Amino acid sequence: MDLLKEKILNEGRVVSDGVLKVDGFLNHQIDVSLVNEMGKDIYERFKDKGITKILTIEASGIGLACLTAQYFGCKVLYAKKSKTSNMGNSDLYTSRAYSFTHQTENTVLISKKYLEAGERVLIVDDFLAHGEATKALIDLVNQAGAELSGVAIAIEKGFQGGGDKMRADGVDLYSLAIVESMTVEGGVVFRE
Amino acid sequence: MDLLKEKILNEGRVVSDGVLKVDGFLNHQIDVSLVNEMGKDIYERFKDKGITKILTIEASGIGLACLTAQYFGCKVLYAKKSKTSNMGNSDLYTSRAYSFTHQTENTVLISKKYLEAGERVLIVDDFLAHGEATKALIDLVNQAGAELSGVAIAIEKGFQGGGDKMRADGVDLYSLAIVESMTVEGGVVFRE
Repeated sequence: MDLLKEKILNEGRVVSDGVLKVDGFLNHQIDVSLVNEMGKDIYERFKDKGITKILTIEASGIGLACLTAQYFGCKVLYAKKSKTSNMGNSDLYTSRAYSFTHQTENTVLISKKYLEAGERVLIVDDFLAHGEATKALIDLVNQAGAELSGVAIAIEKGFQGGGDKMRADGVDLYSLAIVESMTVEGGVVFRE
Repeated sequence: MDLLKEKILNEGRVVSDGVLKVDGFLNHQIDVSLVNEMGKDIYERFKDKGITKILTIEASGIGLACLTAQYFGCKVLYAKKSKTSNMGNSDLYTSRAYSFTHQTENTVLISKKYLEAGERVLIVDDFLAHGEATKALIDLVNQAGAELSGVAIAIEKGFQGGGDKMRADGVDLYSLAIVESMTVEGGVVFRE
């Protein structure tokens, strides 16, 4: 999506190899007008899939998920993160996601009653790198007996391979911008 | 706001005295259509204030803030929470907020560059009880030299007094629903 790529080139900052800061428009300050256009773009890509729910994860996925859900006319469910593992609550689906950024493993959880068998789920998130968070969300969808209709990501770090592995596994993954490489000196290069 | 009050009466659950669960439409699953109407309502109340930025706090304020910001045509900034206190970073404004719900004190922080002197800020959040989180956000606005134009809250727990104290201090606080009392047996009673 050209609008997002331009924004990344103009306002994103590669702060170290592998770390792209987009906190001026995506995950601290949110440029709602831009993110709204991203939501429309995601809708165009998945509008024929009969999506009944958008699933994301706190906190940085919530803005994009809500603005996107308006076009689908569906609700958003955001998974919560917790570092404690004493959550054997029978009302919850839980999964585990390792964060390479923070080098911690998080429990990711949703209430069973808000994701039902038969729902057609679109997963939406701001970043996909190794794909750990996305895989945990897919696991929750599977546990609920719901159908994974697709995954929409704002920025995929193509060079970390998580997205391509997911495509090879048959996931209908759409990334608005795929970063092929990035360095502090050379900046960001997108995949053609 | 009648639509929200009806939703609380129909789908909210008082799980213990003082704790109201609205995770079916506001802070886990998000009823985007309802929250959009809430955003319009907030816009009608503050549209003449020349708002240039909406400030909220992760994670549960982000959905309402983004959907509301569309009507104002402004950006959202969400403060991040952290329990660590080793953040003497000169690029940040930080404040402290005690959570009565979780009985922890959190550091609340924003990047200095995303809130500038002269901005007219509307604070938006899902809940106000004792008002600790809101006060921390107001503190950040003051540190930045920005102007606090108002505070919009989805659900105020009127019986905990934080909102009335804030009004007495001259804050232009608008709550879409003010809970006057609530008990497991008697349910929710709104302020007239």
